[in-house]
Amino acid sequence: MLKGLTRAGLGSIENDEQFLKLASDAGFDSVDLNARALIEQYGEKGAIELFQRYNLQLGSIDLPVEWRADEEAFLAGLPALTEAAAAARKLGCTRCCTYVLPSTDQMSAHFMALATRRLRICAQILGAYGIRLGLEFVGPHHLRTAWKYPFIWTMQDTLDWIDAIGEPNVGLLLDAYHWHTNNLTVTDLERLQPHQIVHVHLNDAKDLPVDQILDNDRIYPGEGIIDLPGFLRALNQIGYTDFVTQEILTPSAPKESPEKLVQRSKKGYDQVFSAAGL
Amino acid sequence: MLKGLTRAGLGSIENDEQFLKLASDAGFDSVDLNARALIEQYGEKGAIELFQRYNLQLGSIDLPVEWRADEEAFLAGLPALTEAAAAARKLGCTRCCTYVLPSTDQMSAHFMALATRRLRICAQILGAYGIRLGLEFVGPHHLRTAWKYPFIWTMQDTLDWIDAIGEPNVGLLLDAYHWHTNNLTVTDLERLQPHQIVHVHLNDAKDLPVDQILDNDRIYPGEGIIDLPGFLRALNQIGYTDFVTQEILTPSAPKESPEKLVQRSKKGYDQVFSAAGL
Amino acid sequence: MLKGLTRAGLGSIENDEQFLKLASDAGFDSVDLNARALIEQYGEKGAIELFQRYNLQLGSIDLPVEWRADEEAFLAGLPALTEAAAAARKLGCTRCCTYVLPSTDQMSAHFMALATRRLRICAQILGAYGIRLGLEFVGPHHLRTAWKYPFIWTMQDTLDWIDAIGEPNVGLLLDAYHWHTNNLTVTDLERLQPHQIVHVHLNDAKDLPVDQILDNDRIYPGEGIIDLPGFLRALNQIGYTDFVTQEILTPSAPKESPEKLVQRSKKGYDQVFSAAGL
Amino acid sequence: MLKGLTRAGLGSIENDEQFLKLASDAGFDSVDLNARALIEQYGEKGAIELFQRYNLQLGSIDLPVEWRADEEAFLAGLPALTEAAAAARKLGCTRCCTYVLPSTDQMSAHFMALATRRLRICAQILGAYGIRLGLEFVGPHHLRTAWKYPFIWTMQDTLDWIDAIGEPNVGLLLDAYHWHTNNLTVTDLERLQPHQIVHVHLNDAKDLPVDQILDNDRIYPGEGIIDLPGFLRALNQIGYTDFVTQEILTPSAPKESPEKLVQRSKKGYDQVFSAAGL
Repeated sequence: MLKGLTRAGLGSIENDEQFLKLASDAGFDSVDLNARALIEQYGEKGAIELFQRYNLQLGSIDLPVEWRADEEAFLAGLPALTEAAAAARKLGCTRCCTYVLPSTDQMSAHFMALATRRLRICAQILGAYGIRLGLEFVGPHHLRTAWKYPFIWTMQDTLDWIDAIGEPNVGLLLDAYHWHTNNLTVTDLERLQPHQIVHVHLNDAKDLPVDQILDNDRIYPGEGIIDLPGFLRALNQIGYTDFVTQEILTPSAPKESPEKLVQRSKKGYDQVFSAAGL
Repeated sequence: MLKGLTRAGLGSIENDEQFLKLASDAGFDSVDLNARALIEQYGEKGAIELFQRYNLQLGSIDLPVEWRADEEAFLAGLPALTEAAAAARKLGCTRCCTYVLPSTDQMSAHFMALATRRLRICAQILGAYGIRLGLEFVGPHHLRTAWKYPFIWTMQDTLDWIDAIGEPNVGLLLDAYHWHTNNLTVTDLERLQPHQIVHVHLNDAKDLPVDQILDNDRIYPGEGIIDLPGFLRALNQIGYTDFVTQEILTPSAPKESPEKLVQRSKKGYDQVFSAAGL
Repeated sequence: MLKGLTRAGLGSIENDEQFLKLASDAGFDSVDLNARALIEQYGEKGAIELFQRYNLQLGSIDLPVEWRADEEAFLAGLPALTEAAAAARKLGCTRCCTYVLPSTDQMSAHFMALATRRLRICAQILGAYGIRLGLEFVGPHHLRTAWKYPFIWTMQDTLDWIDAIGEPNVGLLLDAYHWHTNNLTVTDLERLQPHQIVHVHLNDAKDLPVDQILDNDRIYPGEGIIDLPGFLRALNQIGYTDFVTQEILTPSAPKESPEKLVQRSKKGYDQVFSAAGL
Repeated sequence: MLKGLTRAGLGSIENDEQFLKLASDAGFDSVDLNARALIEQYGEKGAIELFQRYNLQLGSIDLPVEWRADEEAFLAGLPALTEAAAAARKLGCTRCCTYVLPSTDQMSAHFMALATRRLRICAQILGAYGIRLGLEFVGPHHLRTAWKYPFIWTMQDTLDWIDAIGEPNVGLLLDAYHWHTNNLTVTDLERLQPHQIVHVHLNDAKDLPVDQILDNDRIYPGEGIIDLPGFLRALNQIGYTDFVTQEILTPSAPKESPEKLVQRSKKGYDQVFSAAGL
């Protein structure tokens, strides 16, 4: 498996190049960032060279489409999606991810129909560029009632939704935080096949009852109570060999320097991978 | 437009041949019945000859698949679906319909995902045989809370669902009863294109407030308060030229003879078509 | 049916506004032009006002994607496709068309597989914007051997291909010139359903044996030997009510003024529509 | 990887139970056979018990649909496909395969369109039952001109076709014999991802120039000139962990007893797996 970083949890990084340098210096294998923005700033050649210089891969881009609001907002994002996909492809990136909120202000069944069509179109466009779409189910309980109607939040419901979308290039974004807050176990992971997993997030949780864990209150791998070694062992066991990427969402920006936060992240990664025997 | 009958509302008809004879004698153009059962009883040649003898067309068959329950029940119906589709095709029938209940005991969003996949598979199988799948939205208000969670019941939500299913051969079954109980107007029909309509049901409603109308309390066309002439004119206006079929669901079987009930149906059809100028 | 014009056959028109004015002055109902270019020149509001001022509709845009060459060329066109579709939608246009050459330098079966996937992606993107994709089969015999391997050129093969593409919003662009050069008859048209036809071209052919008619040697409606009244009657008969648009491809630009060429086109349209009883 | 057998190459085996016993006695992991026929003979429970008793898995069933001929023949096979898929599912089988002849008497491009739609429908039905469809490209050169027009025979063309079919559950049946006769190398295999491979056939070829190797002149693994150790190593390298199944097509039935032929097969498997370091 490849160790990756997002900016979330690394404090105030100045720009993408600093982000790449920090990730590289700490021995990470990949970063997730906005491919299109990077190419706009450095040019295609320059962006490719940055990844080569720092010996990093681009793990995943974010889906730049507003699929949860109205139809006009959705359509307005499609040109940007083609540009984002083209940019990701130039940088060798084959993943694009979005998250699924567990409740919604729209009637659930109708919103599911709309969202199924919209994400299918996104998947079709991404698929043209050889890019897969990862859907992240979101476990924290408080979000299940944060909006008017319940939507979906379990891994199985998300897999069923992926079947309903029906495109070959759609799979899970599996975040250890949501795995934990859904009370999932190693056995649940062992039922997956590796190609069902598009991307993996690695985060840890505070020592709280599962139903009190907040979505944006994450901590660094190894510093909390999630069985991350079990999580990683199960992924390795089923043959998953791709990115495992940190995304520490916190109520306020961490105060340490990016250098220290990257080191802290690396230490956590080393600890949980080592505990997993990997 | 072609005037059609189902058995619903015609009392205790003995068998399909009597049904065909009654429909033909009264001057109807089509019947809806179980094509596979007819062929099993009369043979393919015999069944074709029956339709020829009575100068009738087969309007639509019912979807013989349990798509609302669990996965095993769903899969168990697929062999029967291929047989039903093959039988319908032999009799020149190109329509198959199912209804959509406005509430469900399953969580709405997850059930929508499951139902989208299941109805897509049904549509794909039917499509192989040149048959379209019509989805009937169901308007009566009492059914919106008859089960635990709301599902969908409006025409627009159903059209959005058809887009989510994403197969070229899926459209609406448009029932005047559900048009009325959804407070829809002629303008709503005029926005449709004819190929979006797979099948049409013609029924009338008692003079009750819309939110008190019960689903299985229908009456014969022309005997109630629905603006059936406006309904028919709008369908004609947009270029719909296919079947318009009666389906009188009642709390108990009507007591008149099938002969009288068919005549009553015919009289109602003549009245509302005439009032529509058709 | 609505009478439409492309620029092909109208000589050297200076710009889109002149094109719109000429079409309007001559009493046409629609033009086909590049929606995106129009909006780039006049702004969205300005472009909409132009169509309103001249009381015209936008019939169809051309597919701005190179789907016949290599994969990179194909992908390079997708951002432009999203922009073109968004522009068409702003102008109320729901059609986008491309033509299918009857032979190819690529191995036929493999090229069919590639083209099926590529046009499906185009259809999916267009479908998001409510736009249909019309595929124009091309009849002239000389093109069947103009490249190394035969591809497809008949209406039936194109309908089968549309089924293989499998998207709800794909249909035929039916050009009277290709109908004629395929030796098709009124009966062939009567088998179609109106929603299978995305767009129609009206052109006439010189009095030559069918297998000697050249693709870019077309003449004005009514001046040649194609049974255009029969063609139009059949379209009307099946319920087609949309655009019928002229596209006169010629070996060299016509020398008359655009004003005279538009009048000549209008005279031809009036003659063949009148002969069709329409 | 799991070592599997078909009956092809095992001489005159009396029935499925003998086949299972022979495979089990020789230490194979799986057999390919007709699930539906087995259940019809032994009942569902009896068939499951047979596989348990002999400690074998069911690798794959054959696609029971005639997708290469006319539409009626194709449709006639769909009910049997639903029954076959249901039977396979009961026995825990998740694979169904068909082969692709490299030439055809139908025009190539049109046949590709027809076959794309037909195999998509097959894949959709199989997918409902959780079964994947494997397409076997066929390499021997003599078959490329055995029928009137060339179709496809390379791995890349087949992968492109799988993309055109567009269903998530379609992949390759990779036969070492066709890999060899297509002059493919270990590098070509290393470009694959394991989920692109639905099934694998292991056969060997006589020491002949590649373009003279006949399709039904195969020999036992290890007795010929194909680099089977390299083939297996590459599959293992990319993470393929599923069935590798023998299918020895020969001009006449082998004369040795099934017992001896199974031993010969086992010896060959052991030799090439051992040479591969597996």
